[in-house]
Amino acid sequence: MSANAAPLLHEIAALLDNLAQSGEGGTVQLYGLPLLPGDYQALREALGEGELKAELSALGPTQIRETALHGVWWVTHRNSAQEVVAESIEVTRCPAILQTPAEDVGEAARRLRESLQAAS
Amino acid sequence: MSANAAPLLHEIAALLDNLAQSGEGGTVQLYGLPLLPGDYQALREALGEGELKAELSALGPTQIRETALHGVWWVTHRNSAQEVVAESIEVTRCPAILQTPAEDVGEAARRLRESLQAAS
Repeated sequence: MSANAAPLLHEIAALLDNLAQSGEGGTVQLYGLPLLPGDYQALREALGEGELKAELSALGPTQIRETALHGVWWVTHRNSAQEVVAESIEVTRCPAILQTPAEDVGEAARRLRESLQAAS
Repeated sequence: MSANAAPLLHEIAALLDNLAQSGEGGTVQLYGLPLLPGDYQALREALGEGELKAELSALGPTQIRETALHGVWWVTHRNSAQEVVAESIEVTRCPAILQTPAEDVGEAARRLRESLQAAS
């Protein structure tokens, strides 16, 4: 295994243990680390590919992919020119980016009520 | 608006109010309802298209799309022949299908520990 991938995988294992025991996970920032293509390759092979893929299209696209290790997610933010601007591995039952902010729900309720009133 | 879409939208609005107030949403099953193509069209137009799309590939593919109304998700399950086998609108901050089951996290932690020990 590549020299840089091993410590990252140990960090992910510690976060997974924490998530399993306390419900609290964490994030490993990849962007900005001095990772070589071989390190990425080793990380991808060790984590594997899961069954869930998501994409958020706001400003640039964000890809959220669960790895074959349940609870470990690979999150890649790109700008509108498709350049990676942030990349992280999140250890969580569900990345925050997949959850609707609570304050947006009230606004959606109001908008739907208004459009139903306008249509009636 | 089509005759069948209006009551469904009122039901969704009530679930959204609940979600905003109590944090508890709910699900409207579409599959099995006597909906006409025009009803689907009216529903889709009223709910709009959001920025988050996800796909789970297990047995058949499941598509999970947030609508333009934050907290309202359109979930379509297909079998391996791509036929729709279940379809629902979920009113929630995050559909359960996007969340890793807690019991899977402990197994992932064990698997990663084992593969790290085998590699060292």
